[in-house]
Amino acid sequence: MITQAFQDLTIPTRGRGLYEFTTAVAQWLDRQHCRHGLITLHLQHTSASLLIQENADPDVRRDLEAFFKRLVPDGDRLFVHTMEGDDDMPAHVRTALTAVNLSLPVREGRMTLGTWQGIYLWEHRTQPHARHIALHFIGEAG
Amino acid sequence: MITQAFQDLTIPTRGRGLYEFTTAVAQWLDRQHCRHGLITLHLQHTSASLLIQENADPDVRRDLEAFFKRLVPDGDRLFVHTMEGDDDMPAHVRTALTAVNLSLPVREGRMTLGTWQGIYLWEHRTQPHARHIALHFIGEAG
Amino acid sequence: MITQAFQDLTIPTRGRGLYEFTTAVAQWLDRQHCRHGLITLHLQHTSASLLIQENADPDVRRDLEAFFKRLVPDGDRLFVHTMEGDDDMPAHVRTALTAVNLSLPVREGRMTLGTWQGIYLWEHRTQPHARHIALHFIGEAG
Repeated sequence: MITQAFQDLTIPTRGRGLYEFTTAVAQWLDRQHCRHGLITLHLQHTSASLLIQENADPDVRRDLEAFFKRLVPDGDRLFVHTMEGDDDMPAHVRTALTAVNLSLPVREGRMTLGTWQGIYLWEHRTQPHARHIALHFIGEAG
Repeated sequence: MITQAFQDLTIPTRGRGLYEFTTAVAQWLDRQHCRHGLITLHLQHTSASLLIQENADPDVRRDLEAFFKRLVPDGDRLFVHTMEGDDDMPAHVRTALTAVNLSLPVREGRMTLGTWQGIYLWEHRTQPHARHIALHFIGEAG
Repeated sequence: MITQAFQDLTIPTRGRGLYEFTTAVAQWLDRQHCRHGLITLHLQHTSASLLIQENADPDVRRDLEAFFKRLVPDGDRLFVHTMEGDDDMPAHVRTALTAVNLSLPVREGRMTLGTWQGIYLWEHRTQPHARHIALHFIGEAG
């Protein structure tokens, strides 16, 4: 029988950077006894992203951050929307260049992530924030 | 009981720019009496995008457009595919850098968008077009 | 009645470039007798992408590749993570700039792709790889 589950997840950030939260999602699937189905994550913000990336070498996250910092420089004089800070409009651009939602098949209670894949919240603002993610599962559970 | 609903939505554009259509999607969910589930939107084009972005300050959209115009310049001599115009290949690149589909949890009949999030069609061509989006809902309704 | 189907799909690549596999997905939907529902594809790697793009003029793929090669140059001295080769960190960045999963409505057994849309695996590494994709369908079948 097909059933559904919903959850709000809050991830506190300490400013710009990648925060892995794969385990929090996996634990929620466990608690709901989800077996086979589809999980969807939606980040309810416009200045942070959801990213699936390598969780082996931390240099990958450092280099991702360095690349995006060069591609979308803080304080770029191109931008008009600057009232909320030098990093605000770059945060919106980074969000447009990446994603705020993602869907993954779940088999035998586990997300079908690859061996080196982790799920990250990518905070694009320099200040700490509390970021909210809506989780949804549809499939077989119990 | 889990049920499904489908709809084709057409968004007319007046050329390059961001067109919000959050209300059209919300109204369709209302008409279908969708309660709890998952909504998916798929844009059936390769030179426009779907984007979730801030719907408060219009300068954000102006700056997004300005950034992408600089990042992917029209008439770039790098491009070979130019028969359909100076803005055609840049439109394909912009589409690759963003997204053409997105999925959102629906709770109590409402999409779980954040306070400042709106759903936009991003037209990348300079000429007006009619853009088609396939909508799908799966979940509880009625 | 709502049902589900799962499949692992392997796409062999001959190095960097776009590989269309729309037909492989359509044939799987056919074999499962999928009628109305939602299909999700998840690529289990962090140095390749899933992309929906134009499948008419091959120059579009050539130009996409040329643009990304210029945007994220191999051997960029910005990068620290270089042990796996000059093209490895650029591959992670390209993946972050695009997507590894996508969801599409299915109607009357067919994906709701636009006339010119094809589904591609975008290999970002220069060496050949075997890339794994998790497929999931939920909806009416049979």
